[in-house]
Amino acid sequence: VLALSQLEIPIVQAPLAGGPSTPALAAAVCEAGGLGFLAAGYRTAGELAAQIAELRSRTDRPYGVNLFAPAGPPADPAVVERYRASLQGEAGPLGEPRHDDDAFEEKLAVVAAERPAVVSLTFGLPPAPALAGLRDAGCSVWVTVTTPAEAERAAAHGADALVAQGVEAGGHRGGFDDSAPGELGLLALLQLVLARVELPLVAAGGIVTGAAVAAVLAAGASAAQVGTALLRSPEAGTSAPHRAALARGDALAETGLTRAFSGRLARGIVNRFQRSHADAPSAYPEVHHLTAPLRAAARARGDAEAINLWAGQAHPLAREAPAGEIVRQLADEARAILGR
Amino acid sequence: VLALSQLEIPIVQAPLAGGPSTPALAAAVCEAGGLGFLAAGYRTAGELAAQIAELRSRTDRPYGVNLFAPAGPPADPAVVERYRASLQGEAGPLGEPRHDDDAFEEKLAVVAAERPAVVSLTFGLPPAPALAGLRDAGCSVWVTVTTPAEAERAAAHGADALVAQGVEAGGHRGGFDDSAPGELGLLALLQLVLARVELPLVAAGGIVTGAAVAAVLAAGASAAQVGTALLRSPEAGTSAPHRAALARGDALAETGLTRAFSGRLARGIVNRFQRSHADAPSAYPEVHHLTAPLRAAARARGDAEAINLWAGQAHPLAREAPAGEIVRQLADEARAILGR
Repeated sequence: VLALSQLEIPIVQAPLAGGPSTPALAAAVCEAGGLGFLAAGYRTAGELAAQIAELRSRTDRPYGVNLFAPAGPPADPAVVERYRASLQGEAGPLGEPRHDDDAFEEKLAVVAAERPAVVSLTFGLPPAPALAGLRDAGCSVWVTVTTPAEAERAAAHGADALVAQGVEAGGHRGGFDDSAPGELGLLALLQLVLARVELPLVAAGGIVTGAAVAAVLAAGASAAQVGTALLRSPEAGTSAPHRAALARGDALAETGLTRAFSGRLARGIVNRFQRSHADAPSAYPEVHHLTAPLRAAARARGDAEAINLWAGQAHPLAREAPAGEIVRQLADEARAILGR
Repeated sequence: VLALSQLEIPIVQAPLAGGPSTPALAAAVCEAGGLGFLAAGYRTAGELAAQIAELRSRTDRPYGVNLFAPAGPPADPAVVERYRASLQGEAGPLGEPRHDDDAFEEKLAVVAAERPAVVSLTFGLPPAPALAGLRDAGCSVWVTVTTPAEAERAAAHGADALVAQGVEAGGHRGGFDDSAPGELGLLALLQLVLARVELPLVAAGGIVTGAAVAAVLAAGASAAQVGTALLRSPEAGTSAPHRAALARGDALAETGLTRAFSGRLARGIVNRFQRSHADAPSAYPEVHHLTAPLRAAARARGDAEAINLWAGQAHPLAREAPAGEIVRQLADEARAILGR
């Protein structure tokens, strides 16, 4: 089982489901001495297996795979239908809203066979048999938490480490309950969780500079998880309009939390779609499937105003550089600050 | 002019207007080697002068005074009247809503005469003549900012240092514009501000442990500002029901941002009043004056559900201990972590 202290450098790649995750990105982070991740979310089990195979052809270092925990009960169809009706003015096809578990069991079988060093969970706890199976396969199991209460539940459930995600983080809030999303800033979250659980913590949310890496290590985290910092690397699968929005480096390009794209709260650079659908319901993954074709069409025509521009609060500082270089520089800067 | 690096320990007391600020608290922080503050807000100029005299009788160390920058234009009376009507069911007298500038010029005259080492501003920039007068009096002028844009404006205006206040902070958001309050977590804010301005930064928001002090210093701040961490000290003027709410140390006692008490966004432990008046308008200081007698009555009868329970997000970790001991312990812990 991988201990966080075994990492050559204390930097973990955020999974970045929904496009940016690629084997090339994960491999670059692993080769730099950090822990690269593949995002299983939204992919088929077969695609995940193929991505793991590609990653393993690129590096023999430890890596991680992130799974979405099975979603809660289906949303009220009337709520989804109302939101669908409100999207009729959007340019592009709508998808069929459906409830599914992101093929959790099939992907679990893939990771149990492939045995990545770490399997992290987003959106909740793994079912107990799943946790036991991953343990048997030799995987460390990490759980994403956004509140001290979630941290206590994950520790009691048997997690090996926690990804403590502050409200600064880009993309989805990774906690257990979309109806009560954690709102804690990262530094507050780290203090509260460290006071209540003994597990190693990976700090996530708005970390884009070496100074911020140093800060979370000083706060007591065992590693920093970075996502937005890597979105502009050539290895990432970030779409062209998403890259362009990030490249503006505009401190006034504010991020905000929205359910407009997926039916689950997530942070992105505020754009026309996000503003227009501020009343989107909590209905995940139904709304994800509803808007997926619409977003694909907008991406294809380069329309940044109609796609999810996931980004953490410090996104204006994200650089365009090879992922390995970014990770090494963050670690070097943090080391220089901390003198260790 | 006081340089932050001259502080024996890099800890600044948050001003804590509205009750908790006392000369005894400021003196204890100063004597411990940090920078104590007196909050001028809500007091008369005469009260401020008396408090400064008392502080100076207790310590000859450098101290700071915090002023509210003059408020913007008066709120629409119809908006205030609607909110007043919605408060009729509350137990206790309502005050007369009025617009004022918190006696800015009178207090400015007091500090120009008393020459504290630092004068910090909340809610905006000081008028240029005020800034010049404070400079002439030998005071360092600090400005509270919540966004990189505010930081750039404060730097261009001539501030000597910035108090960078993250969204984790208890009490009022200290930025320039209540209609566009900064939402940045402290670590994201520090990174963004450090990339844009060269001024020394005092980091504020959710800092209750030595590890968090170490974190903001590692992130590049010159000092940490702590408020909630001191609210339970005997030197603070924190009301009994406010103390009791903090003493529960309940990680589930969540904080939230509200305009219910003052007409300006502020963070407190969520209680009945805050939930009941979630639609309170942006109308400061009119709403402050409107609810002040109501809150005084609730405080007198020990009703924590009807008063502002200002607290930062990490409040469950605030300890009951003498202020000097808290400040020294925070500094010692931070020093041990950073090895400096």
